[in-house]
Amino acid sequence: MAHLSCHDLYGPGDPDEYIPPENLAMVSTGIYRAALAKKKNFAYLRRLGLRSILTLFQEDYPAANLEYMKENNIKLLQFGVPGNKEPFVDIPSDVIRDALSALLDVRNHPILIHCNKGKHRTGCLVGCLRKLQSWSHTSICDEYRRFSYPKSRTLDQQFIELFDISGIPFDKRYKPAWLQ
Amino acid sequence: MAHLSCHDLYGPGDPDEYIPPENLAMVSTGIYRAALAKKKNFAYLRRLGLRSILTLFQEDYPAANLEYMKENNIKLLQFGVPGNKEPFVDIPSDVIRDALSALLDVRNHPILIHCNKGKHRTGCLVGCLRKLQSWSHTSICDEYRRFSYPKSRTLDQQFIELFDISGIPFDKRYKPAWLQ
Repeated sequence: MAHLSCHDLYGPGDPDEYIPPENLAMVSTGIYRAALAKKKNFAYLRRLGLRSILTLFQEDYPAANLEYMKENNIKLLQFGVPGNKEPFVDIPSDVIRDALSALLDVRNHPILIHCNKGKHRTGCLVGCLRKLQSWSHTSICDEYRRFSYPKSRTLDQQFIELFDISGIPFDKRYKPAWLQ
Repeated sequence: MAHLSCHDLYGPGDPDEYIPPENLAMVSTGIYRAALAKKKNFAYLRRLGLRSILTLFQEDYPAANLEYMKENNIKLLQFGVPGNKEPFVDIPSDVIRDALSALLDVRNHPILIHCNKGKHRTGCLVGCLRKLQSWSHTSICDEYRRFSYPKSRTLDQQFIELFDISGIPFDKRYKPAWLQ
């Protein structure tokens, strides 16, 4: 029987404490979600051993993040979408379908999904993934609200409800074990 | 390229929709958290392929759950604790230390942690696990509150802050890959 000590927890050069990006959580094996990572979060992200980052940003990607990703050999998958805003701005479903295909390929795993706050656009993509995992709508919305509180949007929950998951293309050889 | 269809998603006898237990989330690879599972959640739990369930319940375990676990060859690890309640009831740290040792053994994975609502006792145990993973206290409390809202307890967050993680026993041969 071993006992945990600081020696076990930290390698050379590691900080004493890690700061995960805001709203970080594990979605399913190989998939994480979070807000946009800041410099202070990079040490933590390194521990996740990410192979790719899926951003829903439309804006230019921050230079510091690009540099961090280059250093750590992490590829960027950009599926830029605007957030749902009443009355005229809708997340385009076709981009979310493409993003789902990317999530269903284990060659991209471990993968981190993010937008700006990890609440709305990320919540919509994760909600559509839950639909692929056959979660009931109530359970999907409960999770959506947990991460978007206190700014949950009815429009986002409606987007998930109406989203059509049939025919999302994926390669059977590389599908995640949890996709039954 | 394949395309997802209902045929891919459901096996024979599977329901069209799965209902995860309330407050379900993946904590780290091999570890889940949730509220107490009801019968309607069993079909979903089966998909997780659980090897064990770690309960913080002190009460007798529901007969339907015991039967479900027996059928699915899931072992029960009971670390019964009371919830933190002002002014006199405290979660006993030694039981949480034992529970952490159980979480650090991959022979128990995949493992599901639960109490009644998956908010307070579960939140305390997950918070102590995050401390082992060297998360900053702010990040730990942010996660704790996400799951305990709107009933977050200062006492729980203080319990996590003061909890001593040194010397938690674990077997190096069976430690999770994420414990660095």
